[in-house]
Amino acid sequence: MNLPSKILEEAVEQLSTLPGVGKRSALRHALFLMKEDEVRVRDFAEAVLRLKTHLHRCRHCHNVSDTEVCPICASDKRQRGIVCVVENVQDVMALENTQQYRGLYHVLGGVISPIDGIGVSDLEIASLLRRIQTADPAPVEEVILALPTTMEGDTTNYYLNRQLQPLGVRVTTLARGVAVGDSLEYADEITLGRSIAHRIPFEG
Amino acid sequence: MNLPSKILEEAVEQLSTLPGVGKRSALRHALFLMKEDEVRVRDFAEAVLRLKTHLHRCRHCHNVSDTEVCPICASDKRQRGIVCVVENVQDVMALENTQQYRGLYHVLGGVISPIDGIGVSDLEIASLLRRIQTADPAPVEEVILALPTTMEGDTTNYYLNRQLQPLGVRVTTLARGVAVGDSLEYADEITLGRSIAHRIPFEG
Repeated sequence: MNLPSKILEEAVEQLSTLPGVGKRSALRHALFLMKEDEVRVRDFAEAVLRLKTHLHRCRHCHNVSDTEVCPICASDKRQRGIVCVVENVQDVMALENTQQYRGLYHVLGGVISPIDGIGVSDLEIASLLRRIQTADPAPVEEVILALPTTMEGDTTNYYLNRQLQPLGVRVTTLARGVAVGDSLEYADEITLGRSIAHRIPFEG
Repeated sequence: MNLPSKILEEAVEQLSTLPGVGKRSALRHALFLMKEDEVRVRDFAEAVLRLKTHLHRCRHCHNVSDTEVCPICASDKRQRGIVCVVENVQDVMALENTQQYRGLYHVLGGVISPIDGIGVSDLEIASLLRRIQTADPAPVEEVILALPTTMEGDTTNYYLNRQLQPLGVRVTTLARGVAVGDSLEYADEITLGRSIAHRIPFEG
């Protein structure tokens, strides 16, 4: 793409680093911002920069937070003996939106993936084990593994389970099955297979 | 969307103002930036801000430019008597990419659209007429109307033509027809109709 300006080119370059944004969209974004008020663009730039300068990761669970300890870890209304292990921040939000879970979280920041060069030391695994060993911020009775059902997620589950068993915590995982409202006809075999294998008592 | 942090929320809010970016993509962008180096994010924010503080619009043609007069208007290698009127900056880039046009441009910044509240005074129409009347930066012999073939584009073409005729310039417009490589079978009637009406001598 031949841009008429170096400054525009730099902005397009930067905007196109965002996930899923190509050069063409980046140009659209840049030209849009160019037309906005300077105050608006300044607010935009500062809000983005504050992501690095002011946003924390919770000392205990590594979820994003404005404070050193996130509101969930700081709350005395949560079941502090249960820790749900998730891949990323979005997963915490998804689980919080269900309003069904009252325990704490632990954000790994990814899953073990040798092909992407992500090993145990790149993830918040040591801090999870330490958290259980030192009972800080609270003694842990149960760890729920809520990682994705991919090869990488399964590998990470397997590794975590091996590390967690000796620590005397109960290790559980999310129920998987046909989604509520989905018809059996269109469910994939693996999901349907798990639904039947892990069938539960009918609540009449 | 329930975000765990005010700072994250503000960044998502700002990023979701970009055209075609919803809350979910904005969150993905924000979490991506959060994981980048601080230097990288600072570069990102500064590149965006420079769009307002350092990027100019060319004094003559209103194309974006790092300088007060853009390289096209400043060049003595262009046919300075021909001005191609386009809707926006992207159109200039598209025409430049053809490497077929050696004249100058005039970027209107939109088309007349009463429904969107865009009138003659919101566009660079007065400056186009002044440019021809004062022969600054160069005397104009021909104006090519290259606006979109929409109702708004046609309205703007009609208005411009009426204003330009008394100034003694030749007013032309882009040839429209079936695209190179397209089969007639799948061309729409209006395009095909124009192709046959505006047929040209065969160059054997």
